[in-house]
Amino acid sequence: MAQRGVIIVAGGAGRRMGASLPKQFMMLGNEPILARSINRVHEALPAAEIVVVLPEEHVALWKNIAARFDVAPHKIALGGEERFHSVRNGIAALSDEVQYIAIHDAVRPLVSKKLIIKLMLEAETHSAVIPTVAPADSYRVVEGNDSHIIDRSTLRIVQTPQVFNADILRRAYEQPFSATYTDDASVVESAGHKITLIEGERENIKITTPADMIIAEAIIRAEYEA
Amino acid sequence: MAQRGVIIVAGGAGRRMGASLPKQFMMLGNEPILARSINRVHEALPAAEIVVVLPEEHVALWKNIAARFDVAPHKIALGGEERFHSVRNGIAALSDEVQYIAIHDAVRPLVSKKLIIKLMLEAETHSAVIPTVAPADSYRVVEGNDSHIIDRSTLRIVQTPQVFNADILRRAYEQPFSATYTDDASVVESAGHKITLIEGERENIKITTPADMIIAEAIIRAEYEA
Repeated sequence: MAQRGVIIVAGGAGRRMGASLPKQFMMLGNEPILARSINRVHEALPAAEIVVVLPEEHVALWKNIAARFDVAPHKIALGGEERFHSVRNGIAALSDEVQYIAIHDAVRPLVSKKLIIKLMLEAETHSAVIPTVAPADSYRVVEGNDSHIIDRSTLRIVQTPQVFNADILRRAYEQPFSATYTDDASVVESAGHKITLIEGERENIKITTPADMIIAEAIIRAEYEA
Repeated sequence: MAQRGVIIVAGGAGRRMGASLPKQFMMLGNEPILARSINRVHEALPAAEIVVVLPEEHVALWKNIAARFDVAPHKIALGGEERFHSVRNGIAALSDEVQYIAIHDAVRPLVSKKLIIKLMLEAETHSAVIPTVAPADSYRVVEGNDSHIIDRSTLRIVQTPQVFNADILRRAYEQPFSATYTDDASVVESAGHKITLIEGERENIKITTPADMIIAEAIIRAEYEA
């Protein structure tokens, strides 16, 4: 069976939240967000190696939190200067045998098991597979003091996990850092590989503000009720 | 005092919802979504004229629903072939004395009174004022089978209400219809006016899917608790 690895990036300093506690450590229902993300991945892929990338100053805090909850087994890697460097450290922490690697935002705890598995299976035939959803709103592009409309029908909201052939991902992360890398797919794309889009999930939100916490709580309640 | 008008566009057929009842008629908490949108606008601007634009086949249904709830006074205008034509009918239904016109999606019942008032006041010095929020996710632009990354820092999610100087709006809607009009701001922009962006609200979501209903219910619960 294919060996799989998952890197959960929890490097954000949570500057957008009102509280001083980084958002990945905040409670969502009965679990911290990061614990929920780890456990969701583990439920989908019980045999996968899981690496959590944390800023050095959060490692002790996380170990303290994790000891008080049921959290699936995981290694810890240290965060780097930019997200790019954090992911690179996460890749290095996975075994060499790993053939497919998923990279997931710690603050997306609501991704379904089904989507994680689907992405992993698609990665067996494509180099790089990412979940996207079509936006419901209109968008504008701002340029200085001006702005112009953009054709919504061509836009896709990019989510995680993003899943890659491990060899391709490792080689892509040997490239020097560039500020144009906005996600892992853009790193792999810059190394010359095609990115395959599959349908994501609207519930798979990125929790970055207090309003997102409220929304996430509601989605969890609905999951329990379903 | 300036005369103000608000057009609430409820012309959508709700094809994205699982249910056959158009989404603007669905219950959100203790009120139908459209009633909530009308009442929110009325609370913010008690003296404003309100016109609701509905497809002809929904008028009887709405009157039936509205009779069973506390809904602020409003006129009804008939929807047209495209959103553009619906808004044009809404404009025609407002008094000639109206100096500022807000156009709002019926399926955005969670906009705050504060934001409605702020937009109206800004419109006294700018031709066209719209609320936008910065996206938290990454985006890609799809072109056929390919896609490429777009710089998120330049993207803004466009919301409603969009508020306009009434004379400018009326003249803009005398233009012939174009498929490039994605919102009211794009119609006014095409008539040569600058669009002013102000900060919107993440909670001011557009309810287009069952998942959005869950999210909206949660935001309402949080409003009551605050």
